[in-house]
Amino acid sequence: MTFEEIGKFLEEHDCFTILTHRSPDGDTLGAGFALWNYLRDMGKKAVVKNSDGFPDRYGFMYEGYEPEEFAEQCVVAVDTADPKLFGEGLAEYQQEGRVDLCIDHHVSNKLYARQSYVDGAASAASLILYQLFKALGRPISKQIAVCLYTGIATDTGCFKYENTTPEAHIAAAELIQYGFGYAIINRMMFDIKSKGRMAAEHFVQANMEFYCHDRCALIALTTEIMEKCGVESAEFEGIASIPLSVEGVDIGITIKQRSEDVFKLSVRTTEKADAAAFCKRFGGGGHIRAAGCEIKGTLEEVRAKVLKAAEELGL
Amino acid sequence: MTFEEIGKFLEEHDCFTILTHRSPDGDTLGAGFALWNYLRDMGKKAVVKNSDGFPDRYGFMYEGYEPEEFAEQCVVAVDTADPKLFGEGLAEYQQEGRVDLCIDHHVSNKLYARQSYVDGAASAASLILYQLFKALGRPISKQIAVCLYTGIATDTGCFKYENTTPEAHIAAAELIQYGFGYAIINRMMFDIKSKGRMAAEHFVQANMEFYCHDRCALIALTTEIMEKCGVESAEFEGIASIPLSVEGVDIGITIKQRSEDVFKLSVRTTEKADAAAFCKRFGGGGHIRAAGCEIKGTLEEVRAKVLKAAEELGL
Repeated sequence: MTFEEIGKFLEEHDCFTILTHRSPDGDTLGAGFALWNYLRDMGKKAVVKNSDGFPDRYGFMYEGYEPEEFAEQCVVAVDTADPKLFGEGLAEYQQEGRVDLCIDHHVSNKLYARQSYVDGAASAASLILYQLFKALGRPISKQIAVCLYTGIATDTGCFKYENTTPEAHIAAAELIQYGFGYAIINRMMFDIKSKGRMAAEHFVQANMEFYCHDRCALIALTTEIMEKCGVESAEFEGIASIPLSVEGVDIGITIKQRSEDVFKLSVRTTEKADAAAFCKRFGGGGHIRAAGCEIKGTLEEVRAKVLKAAEELGL
Repeated sequence: MTFEEIGKFLEEHDCFTILTHRSPDGDTLGAGFALWNYLRDMGKKAVVKNSDGFPDRYGFMYEGYEPEEFAEQCVVAVDTADPKLFGEGLAEYQQEGRVDLCIDHHVSNKLYARQSYVDGAASAASLILYQLFKALGRPISKQIAVCLYTGIATDTGCFKYENTTPEAHIAAAELIQYGFGYAIINRMMFDIKSKGRMAAEHFVQANMEFYCHDRCALIALTTEIMEKCGVESAEFEGIASIPLSVEGVDIGITIKQRSEDVFKLSVRTTEKADAAAFCKRFGGGGHIRAAGCEIKGTLEEVRAKVLKAAEELGL
């Protein structure tokens, strides 16, 4: 699909359901609400859906957002590589053919939508939308700039990671000229920690396990552990980057309990290992430096499986 | 001074001493070694000087650097607002008229050099050099791109802070196309922590003091405290950003003992306070969100003075 064809698709419909992935991050919400604002500016009706709701910390992106009631006419998914990732609350959209258009930047995209625009080289889904809006020519509002900037910034670790392309910087250069408080946004997204969060990080750092000659750092969080340490489980969101922050570590693995016998793995790697390939072994996927998967079993079983795979990396 | 005039100045001389500020950071060294490489590519002789030496963590910037012996012909200072900041080891350059050219981005620059190029709106001294080199037209090497990128990235907190201009993003977009490992550099500059560093951060977080209805967070580090906690004092470098990372804090103050009765203050602020104005009260200066000064007295006296000033901010 070309940008022109997407533009035509948006023109030709009136009522849009925009789907974002569960455990929403800055990019899926940035892309979702940028598109919502854009469609509204076109005079269309639209709603953004997320299986887990919209976290407060992203409130500045959905300021002024009001879901409207309307008969669903078409469905657009953003930043979602696999219909499973819509989550349980949006299970109805997991059926084949339910999504009309998917705009995504994951190379692992399953091409489940009727039509897809997937650019695996794009730093963020929000960057694709930036390029789309630019190609279509309609001016964007400051609020759209806020959403696009936040999506790009959060998915690149504030322009820090390998996936930061020249295009991401050029988009940022243009977007920050809309005159919003990008430094305040970055502070909220990357720097500010509640005292509970600090406690969670302390806990995680103090309980990190090291394997493979200290090249592999692992955090294992069961529901029980999280409860015991007296910190709300929400404070443990996004800690997956911590293991990789230890000097000399090339693969950081965070194992978090989802339910009785299901564990969610978040894998982060340096240039020495491929996180997406690692997670693919367990039926997951993602990016080369950041990927995820789910593994069933007891914590001991999951840890053993994961460490076997880590050892095979030969770090 | 215009870029053209600087270009002429560089053309007309053969042997350059490049001065960088004490407690060197990524920007002063980035600008210094970018200029060193540039002059060498022009066929000139040059040396980079720092009162405190060049820290290992910036080793990738001075790879291949060898100081040459020559009769000093002219002196260029980069990223140094005040000749005092050359430090004790370079005290000889603190005399009036010793510096021929100063290239800097601190609005507080004392204009101590015979000629100065000061752009207070530039995100980094390295960004000014990028613009200078671009204006002069001579192609730059990959190593120069590494130095300039690192200077811009470190001074903007990886494009996170308010001082990140569209120009900084545009420079980054161009520089990363030179094909060096910017993600590895960013990981080294911003993410990786030794286990000692983690211990230092734990110590600092656990001993933070809160004032002004929790709007002011303060860290006080005496030589004795640093020795007692069993972490090397070098691990406490750059912890000044930690107090501001606590939710709700608008001014973060780090007081670090320099000698018996001299304490160095590092002040970081949100948009609610002016760090440069705060430090100016004590004879220091810097940027609106990050500034510093020195105060004489016992720790108790210094803390009392600082808290009085903090209270007067009315946060």
